[in-house]
Amino acid sequence: MTGAESLLRTAVGAGVEVCFANPGTTEMDIVGALDEVAEMRTVLGLFEGVCTGMADGYGRMTDKPALTLLHLGVGLGNGIANLHNARRARTPIVNLIGDHPTAHIPYDAPLTSDIETMAKPVSNWVWVSTSAEQISHDAAEAIATATGPPGGIATLITRADALREASNGPVAPREPKGPNSVGDGAIDKVAEILRKGETAALLLSGHGVREAGLVAANRIAAQTGCQVLSDCFPARLERGAGLPPVDRLPYFPELVLERLKDVRHLILAGAPAPVSFFLYPDGQSSLVPEGCEVHTLATPDEDIVHALEAVTEAVGAPGNAGARTELSRPDAPTGGLDTHSVGAAIGAALPEGAIIADESATSGPPTYFLTRGCPPHTGMYLTGGGIGWGLPAATGAAVACPDRPVLALQGDGGGMYTLQALWTQAREGLNVTNVIFSNRKYQILQMELMRAGINKPGEKAKALTDLVDPELDWRQLAGGMGVPACRPESAEAFHSELQKSFREPGPHLIELVL
Amino acid sequence: MTGAESLLRTAVGAGVEVCFANPGTTEMDIVGALDEVAEMRTVLGLFEGVCTGMADGYGRMTDKPALTLLHLGVGLGNGIANLHNARRARTPIVNLIGDHPTAHIPYDAPLTSDIETMAKPVSNWVWVSTSAEQISHDAAEAIATATGPPGGIATLITRADALREASNGPVAPREPKGPNSVGDGAIDKVAEILRKGETAALLLSGHGVREAGLVAANRIAAQTGCQVLSDCFPARLERGAGLPPVDRLPYFPELVLERLKDVRHLILAGAPAPVSFFLYPDGQSSLVPEGCEVHTLATPDEDIVHALEAVTEAVGAPGNAGARTELSRPDAPTGGLDTHSVGAAIGAALPEGAIIADESATSGPPTYFLTRGCPPHTGMYLTGGGIGWGLPAATGAAVACPDRPVLALQGDGGGMYTLQALWTQAREGLNVTNVIFSNRKYQILQMELMRAGINKPGEKAKALTDLVDPELDWRQLAGGMGVPACRPESAEAFHSELQKSFREPGPHLIELVL
Repeated sequence: MTGAESLLRTAVGAGVEVCFANPGTTEMDIVGALDEVAEMRTVLGLFEGVCTGMADGYGRMTDKPALTLLHLGVGLGNGIANLHNARRARTPIVNLIGDHPTAHIPYDAPLTSDIETMAKPVSNWVWVSTSAEQISHDAAEAIATATGPPGGIATLITRADALREASNGPVAPREPKGPNSVGDGAIDKVAEILRKGETAALLLSGHGVREAGLVAANRIAAQTGCQVLSDCFPARLERGAGLPPVDRLPYFPELVLERLKDVRHLILAGAPAPVSFFLYPDGQSSLVPEGCEVHTLATPDEDIVHALEAVTEAVGAPGNAGARTELSRPDAPTGGLDTHSVGAAIGAALPEGAIIADESATSGPPTYFLTRGCPPHTGMYLTGGGIGWGLPAATGAAVACPDRPVLALQGDGGGMYTLQALWTQAREGLNVTNVIFSNRKYQILQMELMRAGINKPGEKAKALTDLVDPELDWRQLAGGMGVPACRPESAEAFHSELQKSFREPGPHLIELVL
Repeated sequence: MTGAESLLRTAVGAGVEVCFANPGTTEMDIVGALDEVAEMRTVLGLFEGVCTGMADGYGRMTDKPALTLLHLGVGLGNGIANLHNARRARTPIVNLIGDHPTAHIPYDAPLTSDIETMAKPVSNWVWVSTSAEQISHDAAEAIATATGPPGGIATLITRADALREASNGPVAPREPKGPNSVGDGAIDKVAEILRKGETAALLLSGHGVREAGLVAANRIAAQTGCQVLSDCFPARLERGAGLPPVDRLPYFPELVLERLKDVRHLILAGAPAPVSFFLYPDGQSSLVPEGCEVHTLATPDEDIVHALEAVTEAVGAPGNAGARTELSRPDAPTGGLDTHSVGAAIGAALPEGAIIADESATSGPPTYFLTRGCPPHTGMYLTGGGIGWGLPAATGAAVACPDRPVLALQGDGGGMYTLQALWTQAREGLNVTNVIFSNRKYQILQMELMRAGINKPGEKAKALTDLVDPELDWRQLAGGMGVPACRPESAEAFHSELQKSFREPGPHLIELVL
């Protein structure tokens, strides 16, 4: 058995099921071995940024790593932006990056580069596998490291000779380590603060915004009067009717400060203390208001849910206490398309169990608020801030959850970064509805120009932030990759296309010119 | 004057004329300053890999750096693959990468990453600019470093506060350093070897394959009987009728060894000694045949042309000696489309002065041979081996040379990596004819599978190397970005569409289903 096959069999033995791949010559032995290992599904992406974004969406929905298969430093480079997003989301991913055989590297062939250095800024763990005998051990270590919790990016650079030569076969998976426990001290201290009755807020992230975490947090809130908040772009948020509610922090710093201005105690449960995405002139980095004390209940690598549940007991919160979101949908809208009517149409049509991959950027807030009472569903957000994530993440989520409808909410600017994801959706017959918010500009940048004090952008500033001349036609872009597409021109037409898309199998794209 | 404006004015003062940009929030002060600095042209790319590829094509044609403007580590990541290609081609490029203000970095905001580490593997020089007073000095240094010769990648990470704050204004450009001289010893030694009359070959690269280098090399050949060779993927090759000929080394190692098997002395003029792109089982890394001695006439940072000219004198080559390619075009073909008839149509239609950006991969060789006697033109090749270069490089070349027709020869697999370049072609009204070789597979990988001993690829190996199901429709992809497109189905129809495209202004795309 080659090193490549033992690596794949080790991965399968550890429960890894999917490889999102765009291989090259140095990965041919893995490509060959994939045919020997029936349990490993392979999904081709036509660009590596699509592969890493798919692995992110997949990992967020399954809590286990997929493999990516990338070609040398250039392939890794193309995948970096979505690995950055995944790292910030603590998504488990194992990157397999083929490299030349060790003996070939000193010859500095055209595709040789320093892969290890390039991988470090987007990896929690990097290792170079140089021997077929060792490679399955390296794979087991990579998988355990990626799995966490919390999840992380494990990058295994596989030299071609280690893949090609004879190995000792697969190795057993490492024992999962489980999250670290939160000490009683932290729990007692937080309970004491909450009992004081001063204004307090729980700031949740990670598993804190899944159902069990939200239930516990809302029980605490019902008992103590504290607020329940989530970070601005949670990796995966469970929401909708019957689930406990949570308020996402706003994006712009002045809104965060306003939201937190009366909070005397901010209690972190898996979230970092809030910081500004960008530091503006006369702005501040930390968004903890003056006079607000920050307390850490659980760090991201600790058992957030267990810590919240321990606090419920410490404050004596009844088991059935805590708010639940009531079922309520907006009426199906009529009239023109704007972000509000679009949000209403989505709220009126969203099926139970939907997964939303949300990179709607400036067009998104109305949809977020108008879907809040929809049947229970999952939201994934742009945790790392690198655009070009939404379409691939939706694609990966659909691979992870074939029985759930997936809705990509995608701004046109970011959508153009990784539009190749549409082809994979078509090839795999995935149930993804891609809604493109075509406002034909980088609207966030036009807002940021104003915030930078450039109130009357000149011609070049305008040209660098708009997407007109020529206008993009997403119907053709999607059609060119085998995805049926339409451009409804009224709210009711959009609502009807949405319903149709959720009903029909396979991917669809709906372009909304706003 | 802000740091941003003084940086741009310094660049303009040093002769930099174009900025290929995809900015974000941290670069807003540069975006604002661009409107103050009329001499700096800005070209928007809808993906950073397009920006860096455009800068590569531009730099190859002008021998001076363009700026790229990229957003933080994620923007750099997206640009890495084409920076790798540019670095291998020794193209001058200055990357401006915005970063947070220095004070904001410790807060580890979502988009914070280690940009410096990420940039190193694709940069000859990396610097972090932290002060508005220093930033124009840093820019002058970056430009001088990038310009060379040889050209290189200079990456200037600009902290947002250094861009925003008041500066001391622009600084004068650094004196160009010029190439290093080749010592008399190397010239005398090479001349002595050549005079011996043993089989010898000059292996040229860099400026060695521009007109002056080829003239000198062919004079030497006429006098001494040596062969004149180029590396496999020269950055920029001047060729066609009236120019001296040169043989490009083949791609596959066994063909290189066959080509060089009788060469007793291999003389390097700007090229490295030949190495295999990949090391195959039972293959070898160095492609210098046994018994062949390697001599270095000039390294890449030395004055290759001057060294060749000195050798002409040392061997007493007459001034007007040396072969010149005769004018000869293939007849316009008829019948079906295959790589040969396609090459004939291109050979029959290629206008004088055309620039070819060639990422045709496995479909390309017939076109290369059938254009050899066309009127003089320029060929640019995939020096670094990272696919997704051809469409952006063609776009950048068209920005550099608006009066010359540009022809992109692009395989469909690599074309999908950076198809967003088409939009920039449309926006800028560039005269680019994009020919897509739609063989609907990664054909090189199917060949590499066989070379790896996988003669009967299984279903997954096939699925990872073909692009069918669904088939791409490049007419729609181009149409979606405002580029008129067609799919001729015969050689004569292709020839006619080519002629039309060269005649009409603006970009066109011709998809060839092979």
